[in-house]
Amino acid sequence: MKKKILVANRGEIALRLIRAIQELGHTAVAVYETPDNEALHIRTADEAVWLGDGPRSDYLNIDKVIQAAKKTGACAIHPGYGFLAENPDFAKACEDNGIIFIGPPSNVIQALGDKVTARKIMQEAGIPLVPGTPSLAPGEAGLAEAVEFCNTHGYPVMLKATAGGGGRGIRRIDDEKQLKAEIPVARAEAKAAFANDAVFLEKLVENPKHIEVQVIADKEGTTVHLGSRDCSIQRRNQKLIEIAPSLIPDQALVDKICETAVQAAKAAKYFNAGTVEFLVDKNYNFYFMEINTRVQVEHTVTEMVTGIDIVRTQIKLALGKKLAFAQDDVQIRGYAIEVRINAEDPQNNFMPEGGKTVSVYRSPGGYGVRLDGFAYQGYTIPEVYDSLLVKLTVHGFSWNETVDRLRRCLNNFVIVGPKTTIPFYLRVIDDPDFKGGDFNTSFLDTHDYLLEYEDFTSEGNKLAHLIAEIHYRQQNPYAV
Amino acid sequence: MKKKILVANRGEIALRLIRAIQELGHTAVAVYETPDNEALHIRTADEAVWLGDGPRSDYLNIDKVIQAAKKTGACAIHPGYGFLAENPDFAKACEDNGIIFIGPPSNVIQALGDKVTARKIMQEAGIPLVPGTPSLAPGEAGLAEAVEFCNTHGYPVMLKATAGGGGRGIRRIDDEKQLKAEIPVARAEAKAAFANDAVFLEKLVENPKHIEVQVIADKEGTTVHLGSRDCSIQRRNQKLIEIAPSLIPDQALVDKICETAVQAAKAAKYFNAGTVEFLVDKNYNFYFMEINTRVQVEHTVTEMVTGIDIVRTQIKLALGKKLAFAQDDVQIRGYAIEVRINAEDPQNNFMPEGGKTVSVYRSPGGYGVRLDGFAYQGYTIPEVYDSLLVKLTVHGFSWNETVDRLRRCLNNFVIVGPKTTIPFYLRVIDDPDFKGGDFNTSFLDTHDYLLEYEDFTSEGNKLAHLIAEIHYRQQNPYAV
Repeated sequence: MKKKILVANRGEIALRLIRAIQELGHTAVAVYETPDNEALHIRTADEAVWLGDGPRSDYLNIDKVIQAAKKTGACAIHPGYGFLAENPDFAKACEDNGIIFIGPPSNVIQALGDKVTARKIMQEAGIPLVPGTPSLAPGEAGLAEAVEFCNTHGYPVMLKATAGGGGRGIRRIDDEKQLKAEIPVARAEAKAAFANDAVFLEKLVENPKHIEVQVIADKEGTTVHLGSRDCSIQRRNQKLIEIAPSLIPDQALVDKICETAVQAAKAAKYFNAGTVEFLVDKNYNFYFMEINTRVQVEHTVTEMVTGIDIVRTQIKLALGKKLAFAQDDVQIRGYAIEVRINAEDPQNNFMPEGGKTVSVYRSPGGYGVRLDGFAYQGYTIPEVYDSLLVKLTVHGFSWNETVDRLRRCLNNFVIVGPKTTIPFYLRVIDDPDFKGGDFNTSFLDTHDYLLEYEDFTSEGNKLAHLIAEIHYRQQNPYAV
Repeated sequence: MKKKILVANRGEIALRLIRAIQELGHTAVAVYETPDNEALHIRTADEAVWLGDGPRSDYLNIDKVIQAAKKTGACAIHPGYGFLAENPDFAKACEDNGIIFIGPPSNVIQALGDKVTARKIMQEAGIPLVPGTPSLAPGEAGLAEAVEFCNTHGYPVMLKATAGGGGRGIRRIDDEKQLKAEIPVARAEAKAAFANDAVFLEKLVENPKHIEVQVIADKEGTTVHLGSRDCSIQRRNQKLIEIAPSLIPDQALVDKICETAVQAAKAAKYFNAGTVEFLVDKNYNFYFMEINTRVQVEHTVTEMVTGIDIVRTQIKLALGKKLAFAQDDVQIRGYAIEVRINAEDPQNNFMPEGGKTVSVYRSPGGYGVRLDGFAYQGYTIPEVYDSLLVKLTVHGFSWNETVDRLRRCLNNFVIVGPKTTIPFYLRVIDDPDFKGGDFNTSFLDTHDYLLEYEDFTSEGNKLAHLIAEIHYRQQNPYAV
């Protein structure tokens, strides 16, 4: 039966959701703020609702989004990632208004969003955790707790905001003096950012691999995993390159991590798609980090290696279907890599190129190539939203084939106008440590020379080069 | 070791080959005729050689192509499909000049290109064949043979040019009077088209399914199949829509057909990638039709369901590697469908739109979508070559998901300028017989009403519609 589903997001993920909704034969309702007047997501949806001038504030406005769903008669809302996706109040508002929230119940989002509660759930379920404290008591009592923890487990430790996430609200502490100085600062910052000044400590796992597991569960509690991802290539705790499956050679360990993820999801009474994140240290000990209660940017790599459409599955499960596949049906085929191609200048601290227009845009094609794009010829990079142009995901039968394909695709892009992260990725993927799978979250710090390159793709250089080349060829053919 | 490989083709298949060559770390050499001065294949290759003004005659000129390879130092040539791909003289010229021909040896192309020789090889190997004659003797003797064959097996029969292929040089004969009248005409036509006036007869299998099997063999004779394809949706013997795997519900039968294809390839001493074509009648009897000794347009669907890059494998095998996978490693996952999006007007007898320019071009993206395109914003449809804009191949876990994805992708295309085959495909894929897998080569004849539609995608209508829609939305938002 044809249903209306509202997409409470923008950018490439809004297009991703609209595609899945339309493929299922449902009607996709987009929402937008004034700066997105001409954005592809409203041109691709079947209906569109203007929320206000924003920027960002209207995409974050729970009441307006709920009203848009009610006015258009949407029976369900998909929140994507970012904006309201992990806001338990939004999920609760959907529940209270009889709208299906495509994701886990609000109480699960609430529990897993609170790092201390999440740790408690996992501890009770026997999931391996990095040694850590509960939320520190206020004032001097908390300070004493903190000092005692560090004396027991040793420095360095991480000081984290209880309500933080996605790499925000985290600082490294190397000694007691720094500990005492930073706790009040961290509290103030947490209060400003998350309206909650609670903080806690965790033993720092130095230079870990970031390994995560895609899980998916139906309402009857059947929970399966879709294998592992390696998201260790990060810049300031933000992922840049994501790989499926993990390159850890010990398959038994990877299987163990995946099974632990399923246990963690079950312990949290998880429903719908989610990601269980782990740290893996140099001795291959693994520790639960958090569960992300949304579809993630990097879900594409898992789709490529499993052949399972995660967003389609999310929607079907939310509308009441059971999981159509069992754990044994999930087979990993080959490797996939995703890179986020942003309009940014890596050589200028990854400064976004907002305001610039893409005057020529040609994207790579062929076998094993997936594009989740929001840009096109004529697209102007917004100044008020993120600078993502397109997510490039490639798939191959072997790791080498996959890297070969990624290199070819990055070289085939023609983007004239803004600078992009393409030349930087070309440097990264030809690094021997990357190709050998020998990397962890410190990769960019230890390989900062990868930022030294000549940007042949920027500012029309590539097209100019091509035109000159063709001219040369026409003037100097190998006449036969 | 880095090698130079020449691509003796143009259009999307030239891009396909260049991509595989570059992914393997080799250097791709393009060739071109003057009308292709600005074509993407020479802009994507690492070097380009001008052959002459053409049109077509220089792409077909064996000497010029061989000279281009020698002058650039190319050690191998990939012929793609069409042009010189199945010309044994070209393969022989490569062999004689010490250039690796990426395909089977010239004597295999020669034997399989001659339908009568091919039938003889298959008959000796016990491969099921449609009852037929050898090449008819000249004059009255041949006529007598023909009459006797028809009296034994009954009408209708097919009168075929021995040197024909790809649906050319075939006519249906329904009675003796027609038989006697057509044989001389067919001989004259065959002589003009193929420089060989030999013809033969085959019992007509009425309304068969066209099922073909991708095979691949290394130089040691290890031969595997990559599963089946259904290419029954044809117009005048030219394939329009290709599906992998076949939708025949009897898996044991499909397996039998695939095993027979491997036997046929072995009987022909086949090397490299090829396709064994079969007719399947309404009682599920299957008959060998021919072996195509080239990579085919529709190889993409097999790549999507097996995860095996056929062109990459072709190159590696030609350069002397053994097959890196065994039959058991070949697993079919889900379904794939390819449609050829041409700049043609289906409602005007599929007339090509040569000379028109693509003023807006936006292609679909996302999960399970593969594009092998040659068009871009600003591309002018050539008048002297084919009118293919892009091959769209979609993949899904189930047949329904795959068709859903194809519909969504066809709807997401924005091509302003020429008319295209998109609206026609949208009609076809929503036909209940197509969706139910209930079709054979007579599908288009029995469903000619699918050509009755309103062409909403043509001549800017779609973009105009979009702009009007957005304007309307901005004027009439559901203000909240």
